[in-house]
Amino acid sequence: MVAHGAEGGGGRDGSPIVIVSNRGPVTFSLDGSGDRTYSRGAGGLVTALNAVSRRQEGAVWIASATSDEDARVAAESREEPYEVEDLRVALVEHDADAYDLMYNTLANPLLWFVQHGLYDLPYAPALGDDTRRAWEEGYLPVNENFAAAVERVLEGNPQGGGEPIVLVHDYQLYMVPHFLRERLGEGPFVSLFVHIPWPDPEGWRVLPRYVREGVLQSLLRADVVAFHTDRYARNFVRTAREVLGVEGDEEKGVVRYEGREVWARAYPISIDPGEFEELAASDAVREQEGPVRDLPGKLLLRIDRTDLSKNVLRGFQAYGRMLERHPEMKGEVTFLAGLQPSRGDIPEYAAYAEAIHKAVEEVNEEHGTPSWTPIVLSMEDNFPRSVAAYKAYDVLLVNAVRDGMNLVAKEAAVVNEKNGVLVLSETAGAHEELGEFAVTVNPFDLDEGADAIHAALTMPEEEKKRRAEALKRQVRENTIEEWVEAQLEDITAYRKARG
Amino acid sequence: MVAHGAEGGGGRDGSPIVIVSNRGPVTFSLDGSGDRTYSRGAGGLVTALNAVSRRQEGAVWIASATSDEDARVAAESREEPYEVEDLRVALVEHDADAYDLMYNTLANPLLWFVQHGLYDLPYAPALGDDTRRAWEEGYLPVNENFAAAVERVLEGNPQGGGEPIVLVHDYQLYMVPHFLRERLGEGPFVSLFVHIPWPDPEGWRVLPRYVREGVLQSLLRADVVAFHTDRYARNFVRTAREVLGVEGDEEKGVVRYEGREVWARAYPISIDPGEFEELAASDAVREQEGPVRDLPGKLLLRIDRTDLSKNVLRGFQAYGRMLERHPEMKGEVTFLAGLQPSRGDIPEYAAYAEAIHKAVEEVNEEHGTPSWTPIVLSMEDNFPRSVAAYKAYDVLLVNAVRDGMNLVAKEAAVVNEKNGVLVLSETAGAHEELGEFAVTVNPFDLDEGADAIHAALTMPEEEKKRRAEALKRQVRENTIEEWVEAQLEDITAYRKARG
Repeated sequence: MVAHGAEGGGGRDGSPIVIVSNRGPVTFSLDGSGDRTYSRGAGGLVTALNAVSRRQEGAVWIASATSDEDARVAAESREEPYEVEDLRVALVEHDADAYDLMYNTLANPLLWFVQHGLYDLPYAPALGDDTRRAWEEGYLPVNENFAAAVERVLEGNPQGGGEPIVLVHDYQLYMVPHFLRERLGEGPFVSLFVHIPWPDPEGWRVLPRYVREGVLQSLLRADVVAFHTDRYARNFVRTAREVLGVEGDEEKGVVRYEGREVWARAYPISIDPGEFEELAASDAVREQEGPVRDLPGKLLLRIDRTDLSKNVLRGFQAYGRMLERHPEMKGEVTFLAGLQPSRGDIPEYAAYAEAIHKAVEEVNEEHGTPSWTPIVLSMEDNFPRSVAAYKAYDVLLVNAVRDGMNLVAKEAAVVNEKNGVLVLSETAGAHEELGEFAVTVNPFDLDEGADAIHAALTMPEEEKKRRAEALKRQVRENTIEEWVEAQLEDITAYRKARG
Repeated sequence: MVAHGAEGGGGRDGSPIVIVSNRGPVTFSLDGSGDRTYSRGAGGLVTALNAVSRRQEGAVWIASATSDEDARVAAESREEPYEVEDLRVALVEHDADAYDLMYNTLANPLLWFVQHGLYDLPYAPALGDDTRRAWEEGYLPVNENFAAAVERVLEGNPQGGGEPIVLVHDYQLYMVPHFLRERLGEGPFVSLFVHIPWPDPEGWRVLPRYVREGVLQSLLRADVVAFHTDRYARNFVRTAREVLGVEGDEEKGVVRYEGREVWARAYPISIDPGEFEELAASDAVREQEGPVRDLPGKLLLRIDRTDLSKNVLRGFQAYGRMLERHPEMKGEVTFLAGLQPSRGDIPEYAAYAEAIHKAVEEVNEEHGTPSWTPIVLSMEDNFPRSVAAYKAYDVLLVNAVRDGMNLVAKEAAVVNEKNGVLVLSETAGAHEELGEFAVTVNPFDLDEGADAIHAALTMPEEEKKRRAEALKRQVRENTIEEWVEAQLEDITAYRKARG
C-alpha cells in the first residue's frame, strides 16, 4: 500500500487526478466560538474515494456544498482547492431549487427506481412535465456546475505532466462527461463509475427519451464507464446497443461511439477492513454489545437503509415461513433488523415503512411468546449498534431485490466473531464475488428464503467456519487499494491502446 | 396462396406437420337434439394456425379439450385425428385440477407477469410452495400430456416421407419440447413459438430457479424458438447466456446447448385481411355503426383486453392532459375505449378494472360538459362493435406497457375508412414493423402521450393518408401465408445446416 502511495504525483504517467462526486469527504461548520471546523464523512463511497485521494497527494476532490459553511468554502475554493488533513477539496455551490430537482425528482426516485427495477409498471412512473423540468432545470445545471468546477480546478492547478484524469462518480452526475467534453475536449481521461445496478435495455427504456438517450450519450463521451460487476457492465453495453443502436461487444466490454472506443469495466468496490476492525474494538461499539447479546437464541441479522430495493418485507415473510416449517426453532433465534430511516418524504418510502411494521407485527403475533419476540425491529440510525451486531450474528441476511454491490455483506463479514453465515441474494452485486461462500437465495422466492435461513442457522460448525474464513479472506484480499490500482492500470492501458 | 397449399403432403420435404397449442380451432358441444356440433374459434393465434393447417392437408392440430363434448372427442381422437371441415384435430383431456394450476397459477399470472414486466417487485411476487405445486402438479403434467398426444398422433399417422415437424405454441406449453425429446429423441423437428414478449435476463430471473432453468432447458431442446420481433429473439439468446451460462450469439440468433444448435428467430405474425374485410361488411358490424358514428367529434379509439399490460390508465391520463393543454379540443373528440373483460378472478385484474373506472370518472368530471362525455367506456365483449369502431376511428391508441405483437393495430388499419392515425407504443411488438407509419410513444410518458394524441388528431389530411395507406399496404403485404412460409423455409434451412 505504501508502494502505491509512494508513486505519487498523479496517475501512472504523472497526470493530475480530479475526483468528482455529489457527496464529499468533509462537511464544514462553525464551532461555538465561530471558528471553522469540519467532520469527515462516512459511508462506502467516501471511504473508497479517500483511497483514491490517498493514492496521490495532489488529487483534488470536487463535491457539492451541503452546509452554509460549505458554501463559504466553495466560494474560497474557486481559486484554489481547500486543504484539510490529507485532502484537497473544491466544493461546488448549487442553486437550491436546481439541486432539489436533481436530487429529489430526477436521481431519487426516477433513476434509482429504474436502475433497481422498483416501479409497478402498470401504474408508475407517469412521466411528464415534472420530469422534464427536473431534467432541464435541475439535473443539467447541477451537472454543468460540476463540469465548470473541474475546468476551474484544472486551470488553476496545472501540476503533473500528462493529461488530467477525471474520475466522476454515480448516478447524480451522469451528464458530467458530456459537459466536460464540451468544455475541455478529448484531452482529459474521463471515467464515470456507476455504483448502483445497471438495468437491461427493457428496464432503461422506462425513462423518457431525453433522459435515456441523453445519459447514454454522455456516458459514451467518457473513456471508461465503470461498475461493480461484470453483469452490470454487460447490461450497459446492451443498453447502448439497443437504445442508441451503436456498435458494442458485451464480452469485450467495448462500445464504439462517434469514432471513439468506450470501455465498460467492472471493479468490485471494497471496504477498509482496518477501519471496521478499529470500530469493532471501540468503546461506542462495545457499549452496544450488551443489548445485542441479550437477545434470545441465535442472532439472525439484517442491517439496511430502509429502501424498497432491500427486500425487507420478503425477508420477514421468509423468516415467518421458516418458523412455520420448523416450530422447533421458536425461541432459538431472534431476527434483529436494523433499518436506517431513509427518504421518508417520498410517498413510496413512507408506504414501504408502514408495510414493514405490519409484516413485523404479523410474524410476531403469529409466532411470538411472552418470553420471545421473533423479530426485533430497530428503525433508527445507530451505526455503533449495527457494528456490535456485525460482531455477533449467526446469520446475516442480505436478500436485496437488486443492489449495486452491498457493502454490509463485506463490512459485517470482516468483524464477525461467530463464523456467521451469509445468506445472499443472487441479484446483489456482491454475489459475483461472495456467492460461492454464501447461501444463495432468489430474493422473490419465500420458500427458498425460508430454506436458506434454516440451512444457515443449522449449518455444521465446521462448514460455517470454512465459509466464514473464506469470506473474510476474500474481502481482505480484494483491498480498496487494489480497487483503485485496477482502475489506474486500465487508464494506462486505455491511453496506450488509443495511442 | 393456392400455390402454397398445392405443395401438399407436409413440410417442404413431405414431412408430416403437427401443430400443438393450448386453445384449439374448434369447440364441440351437443345441439338441441343431442347431436354433436361445433363452433370454430376466433382470435389471432387460431387464425394464424389455421393458415398453417391449410398449408398442408394432412396436418394435425393438437389442443386442450375445453368442454364435455371436447372430452368425448378427445377420447375418440386418441386413435386417429378427428376430421372437421378442413381440419384434423386431436384433443387432449387434462385433469381439471392440473389444468387449473397450469393455467391460473403458473401461466397466468406468473409467466404472463414476468414476461410483460408487470410485477411490483418490492412487493410481488412472493413465490413459494404454491408456485412449486403449480409447476409440479399442473404445468409439467399438462405439458407431458401434450407430448404424449404428439407421440400418439405420430404413431397412428405415419404419412409423409421425412421426419415429422412439430410446431408448439406459446407460454402454456414451454415444457413440451423437453417431453417430446424424452419420448421421440432428436428425430422430429421441434419449434416453439412464443407469442408474448421475451424479457431481458434480469426480468427472467424473477422466476423461481426450477421454472427459469426448466423452461430454458426445454426451449433449448427445440430446434427453433420463434418470436414476433428481433428484439425478443435477442432477449432470449441473452437470457439463455446469462441464466444458463450457455454460448449464444444474439446477432446471429443462435444458442449452442448440449452440442446442438438452436435458432432464435423472429416471424412477425399477421392477420387475415380478407377475414376482416368480410367482417367489416357484415350486417352484425353494420348494425353497430350507428352508436359509434353518433359520438361527438373525432373518434379516438382503443380496443383491448382488460389487461395490466395494455396501459389503459396512462392512456386516459395522457388524453386528460391533452385536453388540459388544448381546451379547444373539448367537444371535438370522443375517446371510445372498448375493453373486453379478462381474468376478473385474479385480484390484480379486479384492482386494475377499478382503477380504470376511476381514471375515466376523473377525466369525465374534469373536462366533460352536459353535451359531451370525453371518454366512453365499454367494458363488454362486443366484437362487432369493435370492428365498427375500427372502420370509423380517426386515431387508434395502442400504448401497451409491453405487448408480444398487438394485432388490434393490424386488424384496425386494414378496415379503417378514415385514414386514421395509429399512435403506437415503442414497446409493442408491432412497433418493429409498423413504427415508421405510426406516431411513436413511450408508454410511461404522459406528456409524450398527450402530444402524440394531439398530433394525430390534428395531422394534415395528406400526411394521414400517406401513413394510413402505407400501414394498410404493410399489413396486407406481410400475409399470414408468408408468416407460415418463412417458418417452413427456415425448417428446410435448419435441416440442411444440421445435415
